[in-house]
Amino acid sequence: MKKLEERILQDGNVLGENILKVDSFLTHQVDFSLMKEIGQVFAEHFRDTGITKVVTIEASGIAPAVYTAEALNVPMIFAKKSKNITMTEGILTAEVYSFTKQVTSTVSIAGKFLESSDKVLVIDDFLANGQAANGLIKIIEEAGAEVAAVGIVIEKSFQDGRSLLEAQGQTVLSLARIDRFENGKVVFREADL
Amino acid sequence: MKKLEERILQDGNVLGENILKVDSFLTHQVDFSLMKEIGQVFAEHFRDTGITKVVTIEASGIAPAVYTAEALNVPMIFAKKSKNITMTEGILTAEVYSFTKQVTSTVSIAGKFLESSDKVLVIDDFLANGQAANGLIKIIEEAGAEVAAVGIVIEKSFQDGRSLLEAQGQTVLSLARIDRFENGKVVFREADL
Repeated sequence: MKKLEERILQDGNVLGENILKVDSFLTHQVDFSLMKEIGQVFAEHFRDTGITKVVTIEASGIAPAVYTAEALNVPMIFAKKSKNITMTEGILTAEVYSFTKQVTSTVSIAGKFLESSDKVLVIDDFLANGQAANGLIKIIEEAGAEVAAVGIVIEKSFQDGRSLLEAQGQTVLSLARIDRFENGKVVFREADL
Repeated sequence: MKKLEERILQDGNVLGENILKVDSFLTHQVDFSLMKEIGQVFAEHFRDTGITKVVTIEASGIAPAVYTAEALNVPMIFAKKSKNITMTEGILTAEVYSFTKQVTSTVSIAGKFLESSDKVLVIDDFLANGQAANGLIKIIEEAGAEVAAVGIVIEKSFQDGRSLLEAQGQTVLSLARIDRFENGKVVFREADL
């Protein structure tokens, strides 16, 4: 997605070896206009595939996911990273390690929101080691639902998340694919959409 | 907001003394259509007041906030509940106690996203004891920006959040105001919008 790549080049900051900070439009301050276009690009691709739900994980996945859900006219569910006292029963969980935050967290979705007839599009802001997406896929499959594909806003293609997911037979579609960081600059490889 | 009240009566679940669970359209599964209308209602009210930013707190505030931001054509910023290693400097923080999760967390916003010229609309999904909104207001004022108002999706009017905020001179506008729970049913008082 050309516009996303241009925005990353313009406003993204490379920190250290493998961190890209995009807090001015995606992970902290949110540009609704770009999120809306991202949702439309995902939806356009999946228009006639019978997607019934969009699933993401709090918090940075929510904006792109809700616009994708809007464009597909289906509900969006965001998985929780911590347990809440109002989540009482029928909770599906998976353990997820975050390399960015250096903590393992239990990701959960209330089972009542996923049915075996559901065809789910997983959306997330970043794909690096694939741990978050993998946790969501486990939960969706535990509910007996089908994962149609994993849609990613920014993929770090030099980490092994994509191959981890593809090895399980999942389809990964990324709007921006980062091949490497070179002298603090982002170098892309060809994106999927 | 009539439509929101109807949805709360239809799909909300009262748990115990003072918890309303609205996980089928707001706090876990998200109805983008209702969120979009919520954003439009807030935006309509604030149309000519010069709002420059919408600020919320992760995670359930993000969907209503991003649609409010879209309808007002301004950026949205979601405050973080935990520190992230990519947040490095110029971070404004406030301590927030969550009665629902029974933990104190440090809420933070990168100072670079708030300027003294900003006029900020704070949006949140719930107002109960006012701790989260109060933390956001502290951060916004620390940045030298102005809080125009606090827009709330669901206010628990039997808790003291609203009076806490109003005592500080803040304007609170709630789309649904819960007067009390009676035999497990929600009883509203007149909403602000």
